[in-house]
Amino acid sequence: MAELIRVGVVGGSGYTGVELLRLLVSHPNVSLTAVTSRSYAGDAVSEHFPNMRGWVDLQFQQPNADTLGECDLVFFATPNGVAMGMARELLDAGIKVIDLAADFRIRNVRVWEQWYGMSHSSPELLQEAVYGLPELNRESIRKARLVANPGCYPTAVILGFLPMLESGFLDPNSLIADAKSGVSGAGRKVETGYLYAEVADSFRAYGVSGHRHSPEICQILSEVSSGVVSQVTFVPHLVPMIRGIHATLYGRLGGSVEDVQSLYRCRYETEPFVDVLSAGSHPDTRSVRGSNICRIAVHRRETGQVIVLSVIDNLVKGAAGQAIHNMNLMFGLDEVTGLEGAPLLP
Amino acid sequence: MAELIRVGVVGGSGYTGVELLRLLVSHPNVSLTAVTSRSYAGDAVSEHFPNMRGWVDLQFQQPNADTLGECDLVFFATPNGVAMGMARELLDAGIKVIDLAADFRIRNVRVWEQWYGMSHSSPELLQEAVYGLPELNRESIRKARLVANPGCYPTAVILGFLPMLESGFLDPNSLIADAKSGVSGAGRKVETGYLYAEVADSFRAYGVSGHRHSPEICQILSEVSSGVVSQVTFVPHLVPMIRGIHATLYGRLGGSVEDVQSLYRCRYETEPFVDVLSAGSHPDTRSVRGSNICRIAVHRRETGQVIVLSVIDNLVKGAAGQAIHNMNLMFGLDEVTGLEGAPLLP
Amino acid sequence: MAELIRVGVVGGSGYTGVELLRLLVSHPNVSLTAVTSRSYAGDAVSEHFPNMRGWVDLQFQQPNADTLGECDLVFFATPNGVAMGMARELLDAGIKVIDLAADFRIRNVRVWEQWYGMSHSSPELLQEAVYGLPELNRESIRKARLVANPGCYPTAVILGFLPMLESGFLDPNSLIADAKSGVSGAGRKVETGYLYAEVADSFRAYGVSGHRHSPEICQILSEVSSGVVSQVTFVPHLVPMIRGIHATLYGRLGGSVEDVQSLYRCRYETEPFVDVLSAGSHPDTRSVRGSNICRIAVHRRETGQVIVLSVIDNLVKGAAGQAIHNMNLMFGLDEVTGLEGAPLLP
Amino acid sequence: MAELIRVGVVGGSGYTGVELLRLLVSHPNVSLTAVTSRSYAGDAVSEHFPNMRGWVDLQFQQPNADTLGECDLVFFATPNGVAMGMARELLDAGIKVIDLAADFRIRNVRVWEQWYGMSHSSPELLQEAVYGLPELNRESIRKARLVANPGCYPTAVILGFLPMLESGFLDPNSLIADAKSGVSGAGRKVETGYLYAEVADSFRAYGVSGHRHSPEICQILSEVSSGVVSQVTFVPHLVPMIRGIHATLYGRLGGSVEDVQSLYRCRYETEPFVDVLSAGSHPDTRSVRGSNICRIAVHRRETGQVIVLSVIDNLVKGAAGQAIHNMNLMFGLDEVTGLEGAPLLP
Repeated sequence: MAELIRVGVVGGSGYTGVELLRLLVSHPNVSLTAVTSRSYAGDAVSEHFPNMRGWVDLQFQQPNADTLGECDLVFFATPNGVAMGMARELLDAGIKVIDLAADFRIRNVRVWEQWYGMSHSSPELLQEAVYGLPELNRESIRKARLVANPGCYPTAVILGFLPMLESGFLDPNSLIADAKSGVSGAGRKVETGYLYAEVADSFRAYGVSGHRHSPEICQILSEVSSGVVSQVTFVPHLVPMIRGIHATLYGRLGGSVEDVQSLYRCRYETEPFVDVLSAGSHPDTRSVRGSNICRIAVHRRETGQVIVLSVIDNLVKGAAGQAIHNMNLMFGLDEVTGLEGAPLLP
Repeated sequence: MAELIRVGVVGGSGYTGVELLRLLVSHPNVSLTAVTSRSYAGDAVSEHFPNMRGWVDLQFQQPNADTLGECDLVFFATPNGVAMGMARELLDAGIKVIDLAADFRIRNVRVWEQWYGMSHSSPELLQEAVYGLPELNRESIRKARLVANPGCYPTAVILGFLPMLESGFLDPNSLIADAKSGVSGAGRKVETGYLYAEVADSFRAYGVSGHRHSPEICQILSEVSSGVVSQVTFVPHLVPMIRGIHATLYGRLGGSVEDVQSLYRCRYETEPFVDVLSAGSHPDTRSVRGSNICRIAVHRRETGQVIVLSVIDNLVKGAAGQAIHNMNLMFGLDEVTGLEGAPLLP
Repeated sequence: MAELIRVGVVGGSGYTGVELLRLLVSHPNVSLTAVTSRSYAGDAVSEHFPNMRGWVDLQFQQPNADTLGECDLVFFATPNGVAMGMARELLDAGIKVIDLAADFRIRNVRVWEQWYGMSHSSPELLQEAVYGLPELNRESIRKARLVANPGCYPTAVILGFLPMLESGFLDPNSLIADAKSGVSGAGRKVETGYLYAEVADSFRAYGVSGHRHSPEICQILSEVSSGVVSQVTFVPHLVPMIRGIHATLYGRLGGSVEDVQSLYRCRYETEPFVDVLSAGSHPDTRSVRGSNICRIAVHRRETGQVIVLSVIDNLVKGAAGQAIHNMNLMFGLDEVTGLEGAPLLP
Repeated sequence: MAELIRVGVVGGSGYTGVELLRLLVSHPNVSLTAVTSRSYAGDAVSEHFPNMRGWVDLQFQQPNADTLGECDLVFFATPNGVAMGMARELLDAGIKVIDLAADFRIRNVRVWEQWYGMSHSSPELLQEAVYGLPELNRESIRKARLVANPGCYPTAVILGFLPMLESGFLDPNSLIADAKSGVSGAGRKVETGYLYAEVADSFRAYGVSGHRHSPEICQILSEVSSGVVSQVTFVPHLVPMIRGIHATLYGRLGGSVEDVQSLYRCRYETEPFVDVLSAGSHPDTRSVRGSNICRIAVHRRETGQVIVLSVIDNLVKGAAGQAIHNMNLMFGLDEVTGLEGAPLLP
């Protein structure tokens, strides 16, 4: 166990940032070295995140070479477009990088630029970056210098479809992902639409005409299906709850499949963070609150329709927890280290 | 306007019951004559529904011929299986009946008995009963003695699919209804699963293997599509909110359709309680809270996929409000009477 | 009933504004003439308040003499400091004014300027303005041109203490008001602290060192107690709910009182909007949701401690509803007109 | 660290029970030996608490000598009245007992029987039982066989008043505790009043005429004030949130006090689980969610009124966490073992 990993968190002022802090302070192999935030620089971390009072005594710093140069690993919990401007310098200095935003998730730079509305400043890194879904890319992650941590929706959707896609059982034109997220998925954005009195006791869809997580999902589904699946109808919704994603996934079986339930069980048998429930189950998002687990239930109808229910905590398995899982892999640790806490219920 | 309609509410102790009371006390043509509840008989209505204090001075009574014999109309806001045992006698006495439960919704008695797990005590009334969706059966409702008020999910789902089904534009095997409901949709059932600490800050699907609203939806979809559509994949979810249903509906256009948006606008142009939003909209459930409106937005993708978002207040357009709409039609009143209140937001 | 009152709403973009709209569209004596908002001018009202779609077809306008000159009455639902700059001109043009903000609530201009941090531009109007609590100032309101609509907390607190203060029964140093408000009480302010993910599933006090409603409460308590009571310990709290105020009021009986319950019943017997519950009751805020009612329960302990529970809907009796009540009085209408809707529960 | 403590949890089917399980499975010195529940016996624990799936593989058992005889320590997370019937036998067998219910909290058996409405079956144990508030009784707890874990409200209230009471600074007739609790404080009781649609978006007081936690609070306040303080006005409220207690405490300074803030800082300086915030702070309950911390802020007014804000997680510091703290003391462990997890925010 030897030396501690010196870790920096850039953009520690959002929900993903504070969730990283919460998990990192309990991680036995980590020394939290720097937490940066342009807007909060100089303030105590605990001033903005009162839960961390007594756990993190650091102040927010400006993100720069001084503050980050001592690190072994830097997490970017920043808005899209920040990591791509700093990653090159850090990598050159021998510092590993995990980006929790979208800068390195899409391999095709034109697709990325179209969806994210800016030009990419480090397109050469797109091919090197490993998509940090351990259930898919475990070995590549172990060797990676730069990991693109998956989006929250893509994590829930991809894990839900994965076994059937890898096996080629799904009619490629039949995929629908009706996804629902708690409000923290929008980050700590100060906009009218995320005020308590706007969100509470209500429910709505958004981004039906197109959401940035669509190309990310399609890229991975295509990869795992050897290019057979190239599209999915993805519709996100906002739920009046703080944390949690529930993806309700629909697909039609294309060929004859003996036992979908077994397919899922076998695929995820050795995965420490994917839990396949017994047939007929309905996972609720609170059953994973605060933990790095994805719970999945598979329902098959006589009509050949398969319905998969997939739940995660968007801030843990959908962000900070998965990032730490990736860190564990990159540094040769037992991959569950620091992620063993049980979900909080009620 | 002449005489007031003497109205009785059987089973006034649930959420549908109290919502009927809330709306009826503001209805200018109604005299609330009796409110019954076996369990609360003898108690003041306001003891169990403190909002009605000052509006309803009645006591709950036992439901029987004495208490209901003076009525012109009786609403049943009871559990399934109650109305079928009392409707015959009331109808014979010249009293009109609107059942807000499921007793008269399914025309095929075998299907009904299979889904509701009891034998039907008045099967002969199933053919007479009119399915009380005014947008579909307005003229029949005007002449009806017995109205089966639609379920909350079916109301949102059917209104959302209706224009495309009537026009024959949908691939009949492509229909999916991913529906989400606030907790009041479960009634005032005292079960662990509906406790605050179980429901709050969480989200889950339920009844994926089959829900009683499926045969109801299929029956109507089949009728309006001349039998072309016989199935829909219906998956309900529980949202941590009090009121509201959001149905996200998926279907594939089967032929060439010029303008789905116009199709919806034209179909509902003269409907007082259906509001077709402009293209690209996302209705939220709070935009109809407390009102009898169904708001619908239509999204069409280049792939031929159509996504319809349909929202109602499950206790109003999905129950008590629609029942009063039916009453207005049955008694020759202006159909919006007593239902003009604007939604409550925030 | 003759002619309709032409009404303008200045600052219709906040929660108090939309609640005014919701109530005014159902008011039989009102013609809604203009709704203004600097930030939303040119937009349809229903674009920002989707609940009003179908009820209000107006666009937001710039607030100025053109748009407001045709009105008989103008409501200000603006931030503090706006009404004082426009009231003089409107009054001179014969237009009556009801300010839902704090500009005219405090009679002493120095106290006002100290608490509100700006200089008052129309101090001469402070003496003319009538404090619009109908239970206290009904006759003055009838004759008023300018009404200062009470704050939400002061309404709940003053109505709760009033009968004991008028009777001189309370130890003047014993008053504590521990008050709790839903989030809409903060208005539609776009600040981090009011985001869903900050407020939900949490509870906190605020402003313990001093809150602007303290001097307002003290001014009125002093008036009704003939100067005997000059202070109250007022502590506000933020509740994770949309609407509702619950004031828990503590005081010690100073002399011998026969029957506090009777005192309250008698004081409010003829008040249409104050409901004294039976002894030992616990009103919940939802029992008044969406209505203009204040419900009060009185508890007396053997120690001489009296505990009063007082609940209102902060947007109705605490703002828009009380303003319409004042309008009814100012225009000689039946005072309950347009305010008869029953509370929404659940 | 040697051997693991073999722990049994009796009554593991409620919220206090599952919270014990959540904390115990991460405790390095504990072996979870048995979890009992009369109603769920035979079911997997994870069937009723889906969060524990993957963490607890035990089944619920019947509580009896067989299942509990192997334990070193038994926690009772049962309704009141259960522990008193089983404690004697366990103690005689050399098994230590921590009761999270109220059976051993009140020293005076008559007072207990009056408030809890049953006769006490083991009154002789009342004198032996140690009131398990470590900040008060650390040394006695270390030596105890039987610990009465404090109630959730009493924990927040007593810690908030403690420094001033021990110092004799408070006017003994001035104490008011206006306390607010999340719904999990009521346990997993299946009653109408705790349904989601009854609790959400509402706020109310309860038990104003008298609550069982009053005598418990008074007993301790009296002890720490050498009998000077014998009463407190305690009013509990129900908040629409899952977890959290916020006590707003009022008292008048009786003598001259230099610096109340210092008094609190000094008193709690070495306490690992009490955090005194800087002057003028307002702790929110979410800042302690899931953790064993009590955060306290002190406000002093010129009038001599002191207002203390005290927050805890009712299921942790108010129940399961404090119980484990007591266990750590009873078994000679570092007292923070297993309780180091940071609060979950947002």
